Amino acid sequence: MINFKEDEKLNVLNHSCAHLMAQAVKHLYPQAKFWVGPVVEEGFYYDIDLGDEVIRDEDLPKIEAEMHKISETGEKIVRKEVSHEEARQIFKDDPYKEDLIAGMPADEQISIYTQGDYTDLCRGPHVDNVGLIRYFELTKHSGAYWKGDAKNKMLQRIYGVCFYTEEELKDYEAQLEDEKARDHRKIGKELQMFMFDDLVGAGLPMWLPNGFTLRRVLSDYIMDKELDHGYIHVVTPSVANVRLYKTSGHWAHYKDDMFPAMQLDDDAYVLRPMNCPEHMVIYKSSLHSYRDLPVRIAEVANDFRYEASGSLTGMERVRAFTQNDSHIFVTPEQLKDEIKNVMLLIQDVYSDFNITDYRFRLGLRDPANTDKYFGNEELWDKSEKSLREVMQEENWPYFESLGDAAFYGPKIDVMIRTAVGHEVALSTCQVDYQLPERFELNYVDRDGEKKTPIVIHRAILGSLDRFVAYLLEETKGVLPLWLAPIQCEIIPVSPEAHLDYANEVKADLKSCGFRVEVDSRNEKLGYRVREAQQKKIPLSLVVGDGEIKDHSVTVRRYGEKEENKVALEDLINAMRIEVRNKGLKKQ
Amino acid sequence: MINFKEDEKLNVLNHSCAHLMAQAVKHLYPQAKFWVGPVVEEGFYYDIDLGDEVIRDEDLPKIEAEMHKISETGEKIVRKEVSHEEARQIFKDDPYKEDLIAGMPADEQISIYTQGDYTDLCRGPHVDNVGLIRYFELTKHSGAYWKGDAKNKMLQRIYGVCFYTEEELKDYEAQLEDEKARDHRKIGKELQMFMFDDLVGAGLPMWLPNGFTLRRVLSDYIMDKELDHGYIHVVTPSVANVRLYKTSGHWAHYKDDMFPAMQLDDDAYVLRPMNCPEHMVIYKSSLHSYRDLPVRIAEVANDFRYEASGSLTGMERVRAFTQNDSHIFVTPEQLKDEIKNVMLLIQDVYSDFNITDYRFRLGLRDPANTDKYFGNEELWDKSEKSLREVMQEENWPYFESLGDAAFYGPKIDVMIRTAVGHEVALSTCQVDYQLPERFELNYVDRDGEKKTPIVIHRAILGSLDRFVAYLLEETKGVLPLWLAPIQCEIIPVSPEAHLDYANEVKADLKSCGFRVEVDSRNEKLGYRVREAQQKKIPLSLVVGDGEIKDHSVTVRRYGEKEENKVALEDLINAMRIEVRNKGLKKQ
Repeated sequence: MINFKEDEKLNVLNHSCAHLMAQAVKHLYPQAKFWVGPVVEEGFYYDIDLGDEVIRDEDLPKIEAEMHKISETGEKIVRKEVSHEEARQIFKDDPYKEDLIAGMPADEQISIYTQGDYTDLCRGPHVDNVGLIRYFELTKHSGAYWKGDAKNKMLQRIYGVCFYTEEELKDYEAQLEDEKARDHRKIGKELQMFMFDDLVGAGLPMWLPNGFTLRRVLSDYIMDKELDHGYIHVVTPSVANVRLYKTSGHWAHYKDDMFPAMQLDDDAYVLRPMNCPEHMVIYKSSLHSYRDLPVRIAEVANDFRYEASGSLTGMERVRAFTQNDSHIFVTPEQLKDEIKNVMLLIQDVYSDFNITDYRFRLGLRDPANTDKYFGNEELWDKSEKSLREVMQEENWPYFESLGDAAFYGPKIDVMIRTAVGHEVALSTCQVDYQLPERFELNYVDRDGEKKTPIVIHRAILGSLDRFVAYLLEETKGVLPLWLAPIQCEIIPVSPEAHLDYANEVKADLKSCGFRVEVDSRNEKLGYRVREAQQKKIPLSLVVGDGEIKDHSVTVRRYGEKEENKVALEDLINAMRIEVRNKGLKKQ
Repeated sequence: MINFKEDEKLNVLNHSCAHLMAQAVKHLYPQAKFWVGPVVEEGFYYDIDLGDEVIRDEDLPKIEAEMHKISETGEKIVRKEVSHEEARQIFKDDPYKEDLIAGMPADEQISIYTQGDYTDLCRGPHVDNVGLIRYFELTKHSGAYWKGDAKNKMLQRIYGVCFYTEEELKDYEAQLEDEKARDHRKIGKELQMFMFDDLVGAGLPMWLPNGFTLRRVLSDYIMDKELDHGYIHVVTPSVANVRLYKTSGHWAHYKDDMFPAMQLDDDAYVLRPMNCPEHMVIYKSSLHSYRDLPVRIAEVANDFRYEASGSLTGMERVRAFTQNDSHIFVTPEQLKDEIKNVMLLIQDVYSDFNITDYRFRLGLRDPANTDKYFGNEELWDKSEKSLREVMQEENWPYFESLGDAAFYGPKIDVMIRTAVGHEVALSTCQVDYQLPERFELNYVDRDGEKKTPIVIHRAILGSLDRFVAYLLEETKGVLPLWLAPIQCEIIPVSPEAHLDYANEVKADLKSCGFRVEVDSRNEKLGYRVREAQQKKIPLSLVVGDGEIKDHSVTVRRYGEKEENKVALEDLINAMRIEVRNKGLKKQ
């Protein structure tokens, strides 16, 4: 993704395009008054007062047409510096510009830009003439309160983008199309993966059968992987006494992101935002020798966070989610090796999902804002050093980022690049000297002394909800065989004559652990094959007389035209290998 | 279990025993004053004011000895009727008896009973003489506020039981021992299945790795079984807008059993006590034709209920639990068949767990308390009739119970008899015409008309938490192979020389899906074998030079002395068959 704000040349062009748009709007709506028109990450916008008029979708092409007309004139864009007095004169009867002028340093000149019949207050710079502003598009519009304050008048905000070449604009439009096609909310709905409902509540996802199956495959996958790597699993309750979160420090440092407390008998209880405290309590419930460490407690855990309703986005940001979490208790001697183990496990999992484009972000505390963190400086220095050393020793690509630590310690986030080009944090590995102390955890060391373990917090798939959103966006819903909710759709040519055999094939595949369906509806064969494709089922298996004769199926893979008649036994073997190999194909 | 209160002969004997105990206490504590001494389900107690003295464990044998001494006198127990005036005279200076006398009808005679030097106010009847009270035991003691009011004085309450024969008393004691040995709280702790912690909160269970594994096996088992029977699974959030529960009627009918609401932005949210409303919303989210019904939505769901802290009992009664729940949407024509399907599925599951001692309770509404229920009379009659007809047509053993309906409809509960003789409700099947109406659900019928489906609520394993408690009590923790968290403990004779082979055996077994551990600690072989037995692991596999030579293991089954050397391949085959056969052996 291009960041228009950070690309200097695009920044100037888009700013000029905002003026061009304003000029066109003024031609079409003479009453228009203009507030500000900044460049933002995805182009520009302008906030406009149209009196009682409101911008509608169909108005955008008209404004674009007028912009093109002006652009063809090739008029110069001319800068001029004026005094406050002159500026007030030029923009008299315009309360918006007057407000802006009043906020400028009284002892400085004010710059204005003019192109033909349009003059605007502006710091600049701008392109030389309007003829250079040719490849643009107005992308959307909305209402926006003046100065963002709901007590003020609602202005009309129009967004747009502009490029130097037609090719760039076309690429951008294609990218927008691609993003729309990848939107996990759209795909999730089409494939009946999940839903939301106002009566249940915003940000509270409900997983439908297909989504449930994908979730089950993912959580089985990660739990089995963890078992192989010496983890043990627990299940802890989603609600706990507030005292637990006071002990952990969440109540002091994280309360604003939590659901409110509930009074029960004489105690207050709260939905948990994280499950670290519960795992501390479990560690504490038995004695530990240095020989037993590392103890790796894992949980596919239900957590709850208060997110502002405006920030809720499909499965990407929800209020109830499921985390693939773990807390590892180590001795100081084991710390670096275990961080390495975690990072290797993360990379092992990534290779199963064919995630190859990622780098590590070392999140350090912000020295300018130390109130956010707790614990002493020395331990923070030590933890930050350990993480840095692991990255350097293993020669893993990493960058440091001040202020990206958790409140209890520094961390490594794995930043992956998504199909639409965003860089997002997926996995995390965090070092924590604080929680073990607050919970007074210990182990008996080689010398017989009780010592405090260090805790590593780690998540690999992150939240299952967000991971599913990621999978759907990467694959456009075309899930690989091992993840597909329905792996095979068996389609009897004649729903009557071939149903028995279809059910036989189904039973054989099911007994091998595959997820299969029979479509025996009284519909044309072609219709049923097309529908299996629409449901993005990896394999359609058509069965008729020929297949019955030699105990075979005719296989068509999703997205391919080719069909192959193969013996059922061979199909099962091929599917077994494909599932074992896992993988993921970006679409 | 005997109910002393309901067994008339035992009731009289235990009441007389309470007097005998009081007489003995008076001998040992002359200052003693007596409040009431009723017969309860498990024997009797007496509340006694001992001034400043307090009963301790070691006092009970002394009181018992004095009781036996009095019993040997064989003194007659003599009834006498007196006036209020006389009664007040007899019990003067005894505020407790004065309080009792004041509460009696002024125009009736008052009966008193005397044995030797002891006289008590009592309605009777009693046994003829104290010589008949011989086979008793004082079981426990506690403090108890006078009249149950914490503002009053704390009295000493002593509990006891009494039987007519020595044999009965011994049986009773053996039963108590058995119950203690079966207590799931004790077994759960020994086998590290689950734990509770005050900091997390009462009634909020934390599942430890062994318990987690058992839960995972159970939930996989029931979900796969449901998939085989045409169910689809969903996952819905544990928290929802209060409006959802107002729509469903839970807010009006079930609020007292729920956690309190949480205010978020402009809405109130609440932890759900049941997940029916969420399943209604999912049904409603798509169109349904009569051809698609029954729609069977299932969920292994996290639910939360407010239970009074005094009623919390291990895993049997908790505040956060996991239900194996389902809601089935049917047409009226399908109702009876689907009830049958549910009851057959329940019985199928029971046979996998070897549950054979059960009967069906048809829970009907209580006509004397119609406020508790909603919906109209006609639909209630219809639902009750459907359930009754299914029971009669299938000739299943059932009994009717007024007042045991859910607030939305009648139900069939499956009552099983536990190892300690309690009859408890495990599974349930409930008919509901109300929720579909409240949520305005519909399907398009054969005639093109929109009609309202009927909902069947059903649970089979009930809550997983309570089911695990049941399993532990039935088996005393000796779980069958298919359920055991660790199925095999592999023990190399020499932790050094035979470790490679042990790990090889482990890898082979793991790749076949078995749950295995290697105990390679530097401890004596016998010690490690004994410890595997203590952990109640079904199979201990000892491997040494002999086993390496012919790729075998020496198998010892839990609780058996015999050992058998078998080829690894044969063991795997035998284990596969045993796991497939499931079952459960009552211990």
